[in-house]
Amino acid sequence: MKKLLVAQSGGPTAAINATLAGVVQCAYSSGKVSEVLGAVNGIKGVLEERFLNLGLHIKNVEDFQLLCQTPAAALGSCRLKIKERTQLEQIITVLRRHDIGYFIYIGGNDSMDTVAQLSAYCEEEGISDICIMGAPKTIDNDLMGTDHCPGFGSAAKYIASTFAELERDCHVYDVKAVTIVEVMGRNAGWLTAASALARLGGGKGPDLIYLCENSFDTDRFLSDVERCLESQDSVLVAISEGIKGADGRYVSEQVQTKAADNFGHAYIAGSAKVLESLVQEKLGCKVRSIELNLMQRCAAHIASAVDIEESRMLGMKACQCALEGSSGRMAAVIRKTDVPYVVEFKTVPISEVANAEKKVPSDWITDSGNDVTEEMITYLRPLIQGENKVVYENGIPKHLSFYE
Amino acid sequence: MKKLLVAQSGGPTAAINATLAGVVQCAYSSGKVSEVLGAVNGIKGVLEERFLNLGLHIKNVEDFQLLCQTPAAALGSCRLKIKERTQLEQIITVLRRHDIGYFIYIGGNDSMDTVAQLSAYCEEEGISDICIMGAPKTIDNDLMGTDHCPGFGSAAKYIASTFAELERDCHVYDVKAVTIVEVMGRNAGWLTAASALARLGGGKGPDLIYLCENSFDTDRFLSDVERCLESQDSVLVAISEGIKGADGRYVSEQVQTKAADNFGHAYIAGSAKVLESLVQEKLGCKVRSIELNLMQRCAAHIASAVDIEESRMLGMKACQCALEGSSGRMAAVIRKTDVPYVVEFKTVPISEVANAEKKVPSDWITDSGNDVTEEMITYLRPLIQGENKVVYENGIPKHLSFYE
Repeated sequence: MKKLLVAQSGGPTAAINATLAGVVQCAYSSGKVSEVLGAVNGIKGVLEERFLNLGLHIKNVEDFQLLCQTPAAALGSCRLKIKERTQLEQIITVLRRHDIGYFIYIGGNDSMDTVAQLSAYCEEEGISDICIMGAPKTIDNDLMGTDHCPGFGSAAKYIASTFAELERDCHVYDVKAVTIVEVMGRNAGWLTAASALARLGGGKGPDLIYLCENSFDTDRFLSDVERCLESQDSVLVAISEGIKGADGRYVSEQVQTKAADNFGHAYIAGSAKVLESLVQEKLGCKVRSIELNLMQRCAAHIASAVDIEESRMLGMKACQCALEGSSGRMAAVIRKTDVPYVVEFKTVPISEVANAEKKVPSDWITDSGNDVTEEMITYLRPLIQGENKVVYENGIPKHLSFYE
Repeated sequence: MKKLLVAQSGGPTAAINATLAGVVQCAYSSGKVSEVLGAVNGIKGVLEERFLNLGLHIKNVEDFQLLCQTPAAALGSCRLKIKERTQLEQIITVLRRHDIGYFIYIGGNDSMDTVAQLSAYCEEEGISDICIMGAPKTIDNDLMGTDHCPGFGSAAKYIASTFAELERDCHVYDVKAVTIVEVMGRNAGWLTAASALARLGGGKGPDLIYLCENSFDTDRFLSDVERCLESQDSVLVAISEGIKGADGRYVSEQVQTKAADNFGHAYIAGSAKVLESLVQEKLGCKVRSIELNLMQRCAAHIASAVDIEESRMLGMKACQCALEGSSGRMAAVIRKTDVPYVVEFKTVPISEVANAEKKVPSDWITDSGNDVTEEMITYLRPLIQGENKVVYENGIPKHLSFYE
């Protein structure tokens, strides 16, 4: 029997450890592997032969449960993009040295590119005793080949719930005020669209939503805000961090701030901060900008039960397929119906996934360009359902760590 | 029988509506009031006679439960400080016109000042048929006369849990990086201190904690961070928004940023953003600043069960005392023991509370000035215990609104 190696890569999410749990559960229960190793810091850790024997770290049902409620990447992550054939050679040499027959890489675009290159290399070199599978992960929800991405649903639930709470907060005073909330997403607006789900709890959610897929017109934005202010005191706005002007430049690049002081150097403000200045100057009312920042990707305490369960299932699927001899594919969710929400877990050729980016379809953005359509809500709604049961210790969510 | 009027004031919290629920529950069950009115937008709404009949809005057990899980101020709030005796006269005239015999004002420092002025006015004018009571509220935890303030425990739980999650997130890469998180608090560092509670879940929480009570020395800060970076990759720092240099100036004032661009005007960066620039320049490593912003005061989805229950009890206490003829006092929590955590609800003369500010005792900050002591943990720990049960609708926390 050979060993199975699993690694995590790219930006943290609240669900990537559930996928790790799925891989390990499947491997343990298969009876087909001699040991389950975890590479520390993704493919970088593979190259450096930094491995953990996961049998020493994930031992019982409680460990699996804690792993599923632990945010970020329990094994550590990396941002290494494979650029040379010698790296591929080196990876295979390491896998052979450790008697590894199965390698599952959990990650986003770059990681799927690694899976694509590595499996292509194996095919070219006639290496058939190492199976390499990808398991998707990204809060950005921009991977091709899968209906949606593990981690996205939990981030979407955090964003939607936070917008519902911010709406309450922003409406307490009877003074004109604008609150601009910046949501992650440089090139895809899925997370920003999730702000609209705040309406599902009974509130009215954001008044205006601008995704990065559309070019951002500051005059249009100001007139939208002004119109809202005519009929209400408080206006809540959601914007993607990656909104760009018609010239293709990020709005966040349009104000390069300069320190005029002690420390004396420039730094870049976020999109929301730039728009805060703009509203303050042009409309003169109270305005505040908020960045949801890292919280939106690590708020495991409000993870979506659907997301955590699907993330775990995708880990199992990737592992199962590797154990059955598949290679060069990614586990994926195929949606059968919206209501009731029914999905299947399949695998897709990695070539369909690597180096592509799934953006929001233009007809899921309203013609006014400042909201999303009902189709978007129908698509998003199932992904935030259910509250993942979280174990607390002394009032704080408990996490599983491999390093303490 | 007379009517009872309740109003909310100051900054929103996750628990101020639980206090409102407590007031209304007590009033309903007393059999001593003919009607329960809520003033819209605090004392401003009283002056403008904008009242809601709460009997039409809070009708059953489910409404009470939803109110207790709704953040911000369900009645709306204001920031009006009473400055003239004519305003006091006018308030009493309004109360008489509406046959109001009891007025409960839920709020922070300014609101308790209003209660103090109003009850003093009544005493001077020989008005004995209107009882005025205060119920405390502030995430800042800076009110005198009470062991701690409603709303603080929930904000502390959000902050501690978020730091636990951020710690996971920040440790995934094996590169030197500094994350600086700004927590609310201009003059009192209680909320920033709560970041230390992240350690109670098993993680190590923030590496460095700087409260606004101590003067902030940037050289000392840089050497603290550098020392941490020697033995670990990622350093997590908590700072109060109100940290000040030895000259008494806010750190956030030390960099007045200037837009060099399209929109062309200055704005002020937060303390964390200023320190981000400093670390980038002086240490040259990866650095990120995060503001917990409004989320820390409105994250009702992770409210502390202890905080919500105490907030409700304080509302009941204030109402009960008013109905028994007390006036010019504030409901307060008196802590009997830390372990087991036992409290009593009492009332204190409003004069002991108004216009005072409770800061963190200097001996609850370590000598190094970059952490809090065990006494602080002992004080804070009980306040974040228990998870308030939250009802979700379509994956989003459900809120009660009086205006939809």
